[in-house]
Amino acid sequence: MDFSVSKKIETIVEMINEFVDRELIPLEPEFLVKDFRSMLPVLKEKQAMVKKMELWAPNFPVECGGMGLSLLEHGLVSEALGRSPLGHFVFWCQAPDAGNVEILHMFGTDEQKQRYLNPLVQGDIRSCFSMTEVDMPGSNPVMLETTAVKDGGDYVINGHKWYTSSADGSDFAIVMAVTNPEASPYLRASMILVPTNTPGFNLVRNIPVMGHEGNDYLSHAEILYQSCRVPQENLLGPEGQGFVIAQERLGPGRIHHCMRWLGICSRSFDLMCHRANYRVITPKGKTLGTQQTVQNWIAESKAEIDAARLMTLNAAWQIDQNGAAASREAISTIKFVVANTMNRVVDRALQLHGGLGMTDDTILAFFYRHERAARIYDGADEVHKMSLAKRILRSYEGRTIK
Amino acid sequence: MDFSVSKKIETIVEMINEFVDRELIPLEPEFLVKDFRSMLPVLKEKQAMVKKMELWAPNFPVECGGMGLSLLEHGLVSEALGRSPLGHFVFWCQAPDAGNVEILHMFGTDEQKQRYLNPLVQGDIRSCFSMTEVDMPGSNPVMLETTAVKDGGDYVINGHKWYTSSADGSDFAIVMAVTNPEASPYLRASMILVPTNTPGFNLVRNIPVMGHEGNDYLSHAEILYQSCRVPQENLLGPEGQGFVIAQERLGPGRIHHCMRWLGICSRSFDLMCHRANYRVITPKGKTLGTQQTVQNWIAESKAEIDAARLMTLNAAWQIDQNGAAASREAISTIKFVVANTMNRVVDRALQLHGGLGMTDDTILAFFYRHERAARIYDGADEVHKMSLAKRILRSYEGRTIK
Amino acid sequence: MDFSVSKKIETIVEMINEFVDRELIPLEPEFLVKDFRSMLPVLKEKQAMVKKMELWAPNFPVECGGMGLSLLEHGLVSEALGRSPLGHFVFWCQAPDAGNVEILHMFGTDEQKQRYLNPLVQGDIRSCFSMTEVDMPGSNPVMLETTAVKDGGDYVINGHKWYTSSADGSDFAIVMAVTNPEASPYLRASMILVPTNTPGFNLVRNIPVMGHEGNDYLSHAEILYQSCRVPQENLLGPEGQGFVIAQERLGPGRIHHCMRWLGICSRSFDLMCHRANYRVITPKGKTLGTQQTVQNWIAESKAEIDAARLMTLNAAWQIDQNGAAASREAISTIKFVVANTMNRVVDRALQLHGGLGMTDDTILAFFYRHERAARIYDGADEVHKMSLAKRILRSYEGRTIK
Amino acid sequence: MDFSVSKKIETIVEMINEFVDRELIPLEPEFLVKDFRSMLPVLKEKQAMVKKMELWAPNFPVECGGMGLSLLEHGLVSEALGRSPLGHFVFWCQAPDAGNVEILHMFGTDEQKQRYLNPLVQGDIRSCFSMTEVDMPGSNPVMLETTAVKDGGDYVINGHKWYTSSADGSDFAIVMAVTNPEASPYLRASMILVPTNTPGFNLVRNIPVMGHEGNDYLSHAEILYQSCRVPQENLLGPEGQGFVIAQERLGPGRIHHCMRWLGICSRSFDLMCHRANYRVITPKGKTLGTQQTVQNWIAESKAEIDAARLMTLNAAWQIDQNGAAASREAISTIKFVVANTMNRVVDRALQLHGGLGMTDDTILAFFYRHERAARIYDGADEVHKMSLAKRILRSYEGRTIK
Repeated sequence: MDFSVSKKIETIVEMINEFVDRELIPLEPEFLVKDFRSMLPVLKEKQAMVKKMELWAPNFPVECGGMGLSLLEHGLVSEALGRSPLGHFVFWCQAPDAGNVEILHMFGTDEQKQRYLNPLVQGDIRSCFSMTEVDMPGSNPVMLETTAVKDGGDYVINGHKWYTSSADGSDFAIVMAVTNPEASPYLRASMILVPTNTPGFNLVRNIPVMGHEGNDYLSHAEILYQSCRVPQENLLGPEGQGFVIAQERLGPGRIHHCMRWLGICSRSFDLMCHRANYRVITPKGKTLGTQQTVQNWIAESKAEIDAARLMTLNAAWQIDQNGAAASREAISTIKFVVANTMNRVVDRALQLHGGLGMTDDTILAFFYRHERAARIYDGADEVHKMSLAKRILRSYEGRTIK
Repeated sequence: MDFSVSKKIETIVEMINEFVDRELIPLEPEFLVKDFRSMLPVLKEKQAMVKKMELWAPNFPVECGGMGLSLLEHGLVSEALGRSPLGHFVFWCQAPDAGNVEILHMFGTDEQKQRYLNPLVQGDIRSCFSMTEVDMPGSNPVMLETTAVKDGGDYVINGHKWYTSSADGSDFAIVMAVTNPEASPYLRASMILVPTNTPGFNLVRNIPVMGHEGNDYLSHAEILYQSCRVPQENLLGPEGQGFVIAQERLGPGRIHHCMRWLGICSRSFDLMCHRANYRVITPKGKTLGTQQTVQNWIAESKAEIDAARLMTLNAAWQIDQNGAAASREAISTIKFVVANTMNRVVDRALQLHGGLGMTDDTILAFFYRHERAARIYDGADEVHKMSLAKRILRSYEGRTIK
Repeated sequence: MDFSVSKKIETIVEMINEFVDRELIPLEPEFLVKDFRSMLPVLKEKQAMVKKMELWAPNFPVECGGMGLSLLEHGLVSEALGRSPLGHFVFWCQAPDAGNVEILHMFGTDEQKQRYLNPLVQGDIRSCFSMTEVDMPGSNPVMLETTAVKDGGDYVINGHKWYTSSADGSDFAIVMAVTNPEASPYLRASMILVPTNTPGFNLVRNIPVMGHEGNDYLSHAEILYQSCRVPQENLLGPEGQGFVIAQERLGPGRIHHCMRWLGICSRSFDLMCHRANYRVITPKGKTLGTQQTVQNWIAESKAEIDAARLMTLNAAWQIDQNGAAASREAISTIKFVVANTMNRVVDRALQLHGGLGMTDDTILAFFYRHERAARIYDGADEVHKMSLAKRILRSYEGRTIK
Repeated sequence: MDFSVSKKIETIVEMINEFVDRELIPLEPEFLVKDFRSMLPVLKEKQAMVKKMELWAPNFPVECGGMGLSLLEHGLVSEALGRSPLGHFVFWCQAPDAGNVEILHMFGTDEQKQRYLNPLVQGDIRSCFSMTEVDMPGSNPVMLETTAVKDGGDYVINGHKWYTSSADGSDFAIVMAVTNPEASPYLRASMILVPTNTPGFNLVRNIPVMGHEGNDYLSHAEILYQSCRVPQENLLGPEGQGFVIAQERLGPGRIHHCMRWLGICSRSFDLMCHRANYRVITPKGKTLGTQQTVQNWIAESKAEIDAARLMTLNAAWQIDQNGAAASREAISTIKFVVANTMNRVVDRALQLHGGLGMTDDTILAFFYRHERAARIYDGADEVHKMSLAKRILRSYEGRTIK
């Protein structure tokens, strides 16, 4: 075992940390009161700087124009980026595009790559992933109701999706739809590429989430597919393999989220310690940090963050070594561990800031309300715990234990 | 001991529950996307209905035009009202006006009562309470920096306040300012009535809280008092007694909050149970409520809510019997117990709603983000625990325990 | 609502507290190192004193020779008694005898009452309750394997029981056995009175629990019923009604446990506060109680104990008013709330005592290891939560909630 | 970073796991009811087998006769040994001898090494470490009251110690005593080697811990040093450096404990999973493991154990790389994290075993009661959290954080 980090990654992380501190965090006050779309010009400028620094798309394959970092390396990078809600977007490794790039890279035809993948990797267009349906548990593929029926050379798609994140402003969607209703549950659905300007792709609304509709990248759309017609060449990967591919996508996708959450932990922890040192609570200058309760929060947060980081890097290492399928236990574990760690750390940091923590004068209230979703999407805590436990229990079958 | 509730209160609570269900909850979708000011016309209509039902100002003294309920009785009423964020405002027992009414009733001169109290009780004007200062711990009176200096027959007030809730649209503020800087810490400050149209009363901004500035009643102002001049007759209560009176005000004020939070618990619990019964998670119709984790949440929420309710009613009963000063332990206890119970129950209810819980399609996300403040204002959890423990430890001094 | 306690009970509780402090707590050091049987002579002396004080058997009906306290009243008494592990035994309201007295009082024939109930109430004999079976979940009546087969005028009992508490030294057992195997699950078993000197009643061992076999009253027996023959007149209550009666018994039985646990909370809390005040941690005399973590424990323990007490008294009041069947939700709730509260309070008290807390120089380590069972017996936490939630969810069926 | 384990250690761990399963776990039932001294003959046999397998003293330096494993390697070994309470003793790496060996190896004179170290490493004698004093907080060196006064060529020791673990049956003690009362607090005490047969070394009692006095290795002594006289050559290390050396000793000592606790976690987790798979709870054969609450416990335990293991190995790696002084944060962190993880995992495993978990028919009740001390000794949780937080807060001083 060797817990040391390579010089290369150390340098990259340092550069990113500096960039985030100098270029991105100062944009946050504006980001917190303006809508995302109006931020695009300045974010484009920052993206250009990132390209110049040759830190663009750190986790995308080199042949796609990315840096080709391993998942473990990207984990360390991603923690640095996650410190600001603008980090991943500016370095172009944000969900859902990162996942879509992976799918297109693995399963796209040459034309699909040229039409969709290349401009996506370059940051010229954005994309979305349209799977979750209204009032349907995301985790249960059997309950998918959107259909894609063949008609002539086309698929005709009908269905009602929501939580299609970042659809507003996207160039295309990857839509999950039932193409083979008679097949066994996990082989019924396919992924289909749907340009968002296709007639019948109706973005009903950006769902108001935690008090805001948002827009552009920062939004979650409700979409009605009404006789939405695309050529059959838009099938992405083999027909009926939609859920199989989704599993491929969600594995590393979960790691990506965990890595980003570690950045949120890291930022919140910094703010917490700074506040503890400088907030005076008595006329004689005693600080918050002298209070044992505050010390407990700091020690417990430190311990939980260290644990979450080690587990996430270990999971990334497992995937790098053995692939996502062989690393399911680790992936399920960090999904719920890191999400909950982040929620607790943010909560303590907010509490330590008192009334200020409730305001948008720090980033904490943003983290508090929007990152609450971490315990829900890509498999709720409860689902991951259940599937992890079942897998463990199977491994104990037939063993004699005393 | 007798845990039964009088027929009178049972009827009142029933009427209120029906009113909240029929008249207020249907307004919530609008409330969640509009600003508060634009809701005022319809809320005024509902207030008129409440007056006609003779349920106006349930906790105000009868001689002021209220119903004169005991604190215990108001506890039960308040739980019913708290089920909607519009409840207390429409029945006119909302903070900070409820507290201000109490102070004016106890300490106001006849002229003050006529000029401020009467229209306030009638709902013709609103008021605010301007105590908390920027970057100062609310709980430490010694650190108050706002001053009111006598000049001719006037007080000239200078200082910087924030979290003066509901200042926007208020007719007057009760301002806490140092009038006797040489006195002992707890006898330095006084309460002064300041009409909000006084020159030098400068509302700098409504602080953006959890992504929203809000306005009118639903806002938290930052205020600069710049040579703000009011006649000395505007002194409220004896000079130097500001903190003594504040204690009087905060005692029952904390009860009021706890009671309202129980309403939030109650509503969230209802939503949680309903969702558990009706959300289908498998094609065969299995519901969320069949999941043991969900059952655990329901059982634990029920237990915590029952505990919080009993403790709150018991504290109210103690105050009704012996006054607030003699009930400090009970008040400190419920302040942190109920706030945390509410936060946990809301969190579980949100989680049970999955992605929907994050949206503004239910009231839960509003509770989640705005009621987080409950663990902070009127004394953070940490402060109440500390002061409770110190009081308990003193009571054990000199006792022999084996 | 009225939270006041009657003068009568206040006086009784005061007397009991004094008695426990003066007569029982001084016996504990001996109790912790000796076996229970060797304590019997001194405990008999104390019992004689209790009888003289007319505080014997506080919860037994007056016509049986008890004080006839209501369940609510007994709750307050029981908290005082529970402060020492010797309390209930010396005042003769200990499990399982208390429950057996109730069954015999309600269902016993005149002869049974004369033979078993009378000497039991007088404290002349002891009894046990033989239901739980090895490797069978206590909560599932369908899985009972002990049988009682009619043969001539007798029942012949065969089966393997364990956790028959206090069997060692008992005069008789109430045995749960299947008499009607063809009946529906809840109507298969009956209760049968079995004198412990009956041939075939084989006490295999006192099960070593937490490092000790124990003996006499303080023990948990494993019993083999091997063709154990008793006359059919020993049937207690109607045939096949064993589980129905057990429910009757377990309802108040759970309340009894909760009440006793509150006494353990109370004692542990006292020890914790005393230690906090007197344990010096610096040469300058700073005490443990100045540490904020300790203050948090005290505040949280106080809050949890207050909650547990109010809920328990409320449940007792409900049973007094409406009977146990109508109070099932309250009973299930306090079963898991109070058990967990006690475990947490004892754990904090132990931690506050540091190394001393691990020793038998205080009572805390005894509470810690033996009262851990509270979360298991009479229905594990998990079972109560599940059944509580199911009952709640049923009550929401068909309701419209928004 | 590389999370792989060397083939060498993998093989050693496998051998140890097999040995523990085959030779030690079968001794546990006897161990749980007998006293330790009576187990010595059979344990000596097992030790001989270990020596033959060349797995003796895995963490002792090669030149002392140990295997010379790195701390990281010993961590993996120690987890395997910790699965049984007999593991470390049989492989001869048990506290407090392991720590005493380290001190003697680093600071002992040649004569001291020959007289004490050599037979200790061989397992021919045992030793104890006599620091903690009655009613004194172990963590505060200023409050040490035991003195060693020079008289002729001797030290004359007077003082009252307790929790001198394993003193019963030891050949010698390392005693911490004030030799330089006028020096600054951390330079007052020295370590002195005291053969236990020295007149004035009075073992008052083995303190009853969790219901048992224990004896021999499994005991905690109270010791009165009454004019206990040893030659000044028995000074171990430089005079006045007692606490400095103790820090050296406690750093790795804490790691050793954490490693052993991971073994307890591992064993408890195995028992939990086995029980979940095989305990039937309905007549139709449904097992405990189908219950979602049980699945939650398994998933959460797995996550917490994985985290604790990674953190412990990381801390060991840090010490291997940079020494204990540079690794203080990591050491403090794992001390409280692993102790609490273990306590929670054992608690869940016990709960999952129901009534059986309370008995001594499994090892869990032993772990439950005796390993509770883990949160207390070698620095209570509260002390480690405080010191960790203070160190972190210092590192943030002067930094600008936004």
